[in-house]
Amino acid sequence: MSDIASGDLGPWLSPEDLDLVRRKVPILYIDALPVRLGERGELETIGLLLRATAEGRISRALVSGRVLYHETIREALERHLEKDLGPMALPQLPTSLVPFAVGEYFPTPGSPFHDPRQHAVSLAYVVPVAGDCQPRNDTLEMTWLTPAEAMTPEILDDLGDGHAVLVKQALAATGTIR
Amino acid sequence: MSDIASGDLGPWLSPEDLDLVRRKVPILYIDALPVRLGERGELETIGLLLRATAEGRISRALVSGRVLYHETIREALERHLEKDLGPMALPQLPTSLVPFAVGEYFPTPGSPFHDPRQHAVSLAYVVPVAGDCQPRNDTLEMTWLTPAEAMTPEILDDLGDGHAVLVKQALAATGTIR
Amino acid sequence: MSDIASGDLGPWLSPEDLDLVRRKVPILYIDALPVRLGERGELETIGLLLRATAEGRISRALVSGRVLYHETIREALERHLEKDLGPMALPQLPTSLVPFAVGEYFPTPGSPFHDPRQHAVSLAYVVPVAGDCQPRNDTLEMTWLTPAEAMTPEILDDLGDGHAVLVKQALAATGTIR
Amino acid sequence: MSDIASGDLGPWLSPEDLDLVRRKVPILYIDALPVRLGERGELETIGLLLRATAEGRISRALVSGRVLYHETIREALERHLEKDLGPMALPQLPTSLVPFAVGEYFPTPGSPFHDPRQHAVSLAYVVPVAGDCQPRNDTLEMTWLTPAEAMTPEILDDLGDGHAVLVKQALAATGTIR
Repeated sequence: MSDIASGDLGPWLSPEDLDLVRRKVPILYIDALPVRLGERGELETIGLLLRATAEGRISRALVSGRVLYHETIREALERHLEKDLGPMALPQLPTSLVPFAVGEYFPTPGSPFHDPRQHAVSLAYVVPVAGDCQPRNDTLEMTWLTPAEAMTPEILDDLGDGHAVLVKQALAATGTIR
Repeated sequence: MSDIASGDLGPWLSPEDLDLVRRKVPILYIDALPVRLGERGELETIGLLLRATAEGRISRALVSGRVLYHETIREALERHLEKDLGPMALPQLPTSLVPFAVGEYFPTPGSPFHDPRQHAVSLAYVVPVAGDCQPRNDTLEMTWLTPAEAMTPEILDDLGDGHAVLVKQALAATGTIR
Repeated sequence: MSDIASGDLGPWLSPEDLDLVRRKVPILYIDALPVRLGERGELETIGLLLRATAEGRISRALVSGRVLYHETIREALERHLEKDLGPMALPQLPTSLVPFAVGEYFPTPGSPFHDPRQHAVSLAYVVPVAGDCQPRNDTLEMTWLTPAEAMTPEILDDLGDGHAVLVKQALAATGTIR
Repeated sequence: MSDIASGDLGPWLSPEDLDLVRRKVPILYIDALPVRLGERGELETIGLLLRATAEGRISRALVSGRVLYHETIREALERHLEKDLGPMALPQLPTSLVPFAVGEYFPTPGSPFHDPRQHAVSLAYVVPVAGDCQPRNDTLEMTWLTPAEAMTPEILDDLGDGHAVLVKQALAATGTIR
């Protein structure tokens, strides 16, 4: 959920208004897990964004961001995928808007999924990409991992609680969790 | 989406703040279709709320309403089901938060699904109810209809575009559309 | 389910053995609905096979066929899609084997879905195709229809009960039923 | 998949015929994971069958068994749940036949999911049970485990490859995997 943190608020929302809105209603997000497919559609690798946090720690993440006012979920997916993967990734957006998982994040300390900034609800999708990914902004690298590699404790730790669960759910939904 | 129209805004949001929020971000809703099941889990009838509009016209609807700040989706489902069906309906909330459909409503005239008040995104669930439904507030009656009865043009017309599509999607997802 | 009728039994099953098997266990099928997608993944048209029946009547169908012994569901999808659409269709097989619908067909007269030859259980998938379809064998034509065109009574009548319901379920699952 | 091993073949299939059928076509199975739900529908515990193998080893399993000729999937679920949990379990069969996972098992050594007896395809469902479970036949005990308890290596080892993956997929689909 780095887009708001990094200032990508869209033209409609001043920082003051965003502060207000975030204390009033749940904020809608999308999460997208880029994947590479084999020739029969089977998931071969998943793509995780590698970033350095402000404290210099490594973190990994899915593509993630807010759905803006007047924006469709498909447009939000397209915009965030292009923002994080570059214009040549050729993502194949889902034929159905039914997500493989719905995430709920609360600002209350102690919530199973915690987001100090806001109450967020996120719709998560698996998105096959056929082209070249050129990570941008604060992303250091796009790492492609097999399901077995993604399920190692090191990778799951770098993902943080919410995104580690999303990766497990995506692998389960595609039949590639072991 | 009658709860906001009928003033059920929750204690957190003044009318002025709601007006502001509605022009800034998508508003998250849940839709719930109450159903009666046969003894092997097959859908037998669906329950639609019957209301009179301000103009005196009959309209039908699913249970529907906003997810409040700090409220989980399960709590929102429970609250709106109790509000519309009464405390004895004994709804069986879903084991998975993955909805059978995601609806998008825009304030722009000409949108396939139109909501003049706001940009809304709705997560829709089928909810078996085992108890007695006592419709409340502005609801005249809870009508139980077989899938065949629900698919007649009269009923679909009374539902309005968005909810008619949701009923078709629910019948399709449960294998009872014909 | 034309593959068995037209003799495509695979090398493993003699007609006598098939007759025996069909009276002993449910037979596993796949159904695939070819679709064309817009640039944001939204379903634009569906592809239906047009055939002439032995009695000279027009009928329409999804791609459909049996899963053979030792064959994966992905291999069965690939084989039947190539058989019906030709080798240049470039189908994108699903990332998940979870179907959008499960069909049950019984030889008993009066069953909601009837198959005089056997008890069949079918797993149904939406399959985007990016290439050229060259219908083969007994298929006269591949017809591309918008969701609205597919939902007309003429088309649904040509599909027969089971496949008409599958088309409705596919349009519902992709959010394009109206 | 113990029903065939323990001789529950139904009246239609002699051992000789079953041997033949198993070498000719994929055999259709259902898997059911019994669960206990909280008052808002959230999964609290899952129920696993505890058995002693012929070699005296402990093994755990989901409810599992074959779909018979002329039997609906709902009837097969009901029959196998009653066979393994007794008549007082009060299972709530699913409203949709779309499974949370599709399993493929092959007799070929080295298959990711191996079944030495046959090529089997299994449709897996989560089934809430509200009543008392009285395990029968060769089942020693029904063990109720929280998602965290079920994900320990000891339990997953006792489940065997196929069923361990199904448990992970069920927890992922219900949003309770961590």
